[in-house]
Amino acid sequence: MSSPADHAELFPGFEVLRDRVERALREVLSPPQQSGPFAGLDADCPDRLREAMRHSLLAGGKRLRPVLTLACDQACRANEAGSGADRHGDDNALRAAVAVELVHTYSLVHDDLPCMDDDDLRRGRPTCHVAFDEATAVLAGDALLTLAFQTLAELDPPGAVAGCVVTLARAAGAVGMVAGQMADLEAEADGPPPTNDVDRLSAGAHLQSIHRRKTGALIAASCEMGGIVAGADRGTRAALKRYGERLGLAFQIADDLLDLSADTAALGKTAGKDVAAGKLTYPALHGEAGSRRMAETVAGEAIAALESLGEAAEPLRALARYAVERDR
Amino acid sequence: MSSPADHAELFPGFEVLRDRVERALREVLSPPQQSGPFAGLDADCPDRLREAMRHSLLAGGKRLRPVLTLACDQACRANEAGSGADRHGDDNALRAAVAVELVHTYSLVHDDLPCMDDDDLRRGRPTCHVAFDEATAVLAGDALLTLAFQTLAELDPPGAVAGCVVTLARAAGAVGMVAGQMADLEAEADGPPPTNDVDRLSAGAHLQSIHRRKTGALIAASCEMGGIVAGADRGTRAALKRYGERLGLAFQIADDLLDLSADTAALGKTAGKDVAAGKLTYPALHGEAGSRRMAETVAGEAIAALESLGEAAEPLRALARYAVERDR
Repeated sequence: MSSPADHAELFPGFEVLRDRVERALREVLSPPQQSGPFAGLDADCPDRLREAMRHSLLAGGKRLRPVLTLACDQACRANEAGSGADRHGDDNALRAAVAVELVHTYSLVHDDLPCMDDDDLRRGRPTCHVAFDEATAVLAGDALLTLAFQTLAELDPPGAVAGCVVTLARAAGAVGMVAGQMADLEAEADGPPPTNDVDRLSAGAHLQSIHRRKTGALIAASCEMGGIVAGADRGTRAALKRYGERLGLAFQIADDLLDLSADTAALGKTAGKDVAAGKLTYPALHGEAGSRRMAETVAGEAIAALESLGEAAEPLRALARYAVERDR
Repeated sequence: MSSPADHAELFPGFEVLRDRVERALREVLSPPQQSGPFAGLDADCPDRLREAMRHSLLAGGKRLRPVLTLACDQACRANEAGSGADRHGDDNALRAAVAVELVHTYSLVHDDLPCMDDDDLRRGRPTCHVAFDEATAVLAGDALLTLAFQTLAELDPPGAVAGCVVTLARAAGAVGMVAGQMADLEAEADGPPPTNDVDRLSAGAHLQSIHRRKTGALIAASCEMGGIVAGADRGTRAALKRYGERLGLAFQIADDLLDLSADTAALGKTAGKDVAAGKLTYPALHGEAGSRRMAETVAGEAIAALESLGEAAEPLRALARYAVERDR
């Protein structure tokens, strides 16, 4: 997914949550002598491995997923208790948020490998295997993924551990993000988008099934985990998951549209690259206007999913509107 | 670690436990229409990904780690209740055992990659990246690791989830197995074993610190998790962890000795390879007789750790004796 400016205020209060996430991420990989409540590594971690993990985890970014976890937690707790955040709940939500970002970062490190998408640069900096080496990048990704589950297991009290671990693992693994990356690699080998209507319909369904697993599942899990740590009921958790799924799809369609306008400005360079790579995109399948309508419908579905959460979910609604308006 | 014959009866009752593990491992990656209580994947898992995971997970092997989890669970429960296994506890121990083997298998898939140890064969079959391709092998490893934590999160009742997830994650991650692999890759670049005494002492400590993390930590966690699912007290868990640490080290030293005798028989072929790769081994540092004494001491420490468990831990003691006797 392409990034809006890292420090954009995606909804009122976004930056406050993003700063909390940044501080916790720094702590989770801090050297042993600087450990705090989130510290996940001790002196047994080789320096080079720690540096490779830090290189990738602390490379900036808008931290959309962990901020969603915090915002969903806050929406649930404000709705329930009226007054909101006790200290304890805050730390639990932050722990879940850190786990989500660790998983997202590991996926970027492995996706960038030469045998996968073979990317040298990310956010203008060398990718992990370029800055270090391939073996270190594989191991750093493995360690980030493992640390995500370790972080979740230290939720206090441990009542939410099982729910969060299952939710994150299903979203990240062989029926979620890893499945999506596998399907994406297989789709790239299939050549350019089809031209007849029946094939386009089936390609459209396939594209959606790739994105649902590759990016949608983790965004949905980020939202649902906010509900889990807040102790939300089953219905509210399902609503947050649905919101996350639709939000992820809205962002994806809008990203494809943004790439398209960037392409035009840059004389079709990236467009040519996508076509050459046989990449399916929403505009390629549904046209620009059709894709824009689809993004608006999907963002509307995200907002509708939050109905039971009332006023407290306003930041989440603002984010869904932002997702489709930023490409104008 | 090199393997004794897959179907050796490492202690009385070993084969019964090994069969239970095999059946559960088959179920965890079964196609959706054949799912049972351990099934971890549904139709969203791409066929090729599932096949790659099955290729590596169902490749045989003695299943030492998951059998240890079952044997430690049984030792604790027999000791506590006198009569042993209720159905419920059996399933929980099996779930923990499956998680351990999923982690062990993922580590083999990633360690075999061209950028790591670059191995084409394992147990006489093509390694995952040879049978499929590198990208699929990276993803299959990622998915196996993720599935391990998902499997643990479904322990029922969920009281043991947090303890098992933390124990497994610490043993597998950036202060455990991944750290050991990283340190091993760095050590290989350091050249042949040193010849003067001071350097040999420091190299010996370094070798032990690599093995403690690379193989010892996961074996110790396999044992400790048996105690956790059995509801053992803190002291018993610590004893099982200590047993696993010493057992892992005894196996490692004995493996190095076995390689040495194989070498002699094969005109020093493998020995030459180890020296050329700058691999540290126990016989290279401490001599053959010194290594044999060390293995016996360490196996004795493993047995001593089990003192409080009485008769019920006899299979575990037999395994420690087997570890050092098999190279004779």
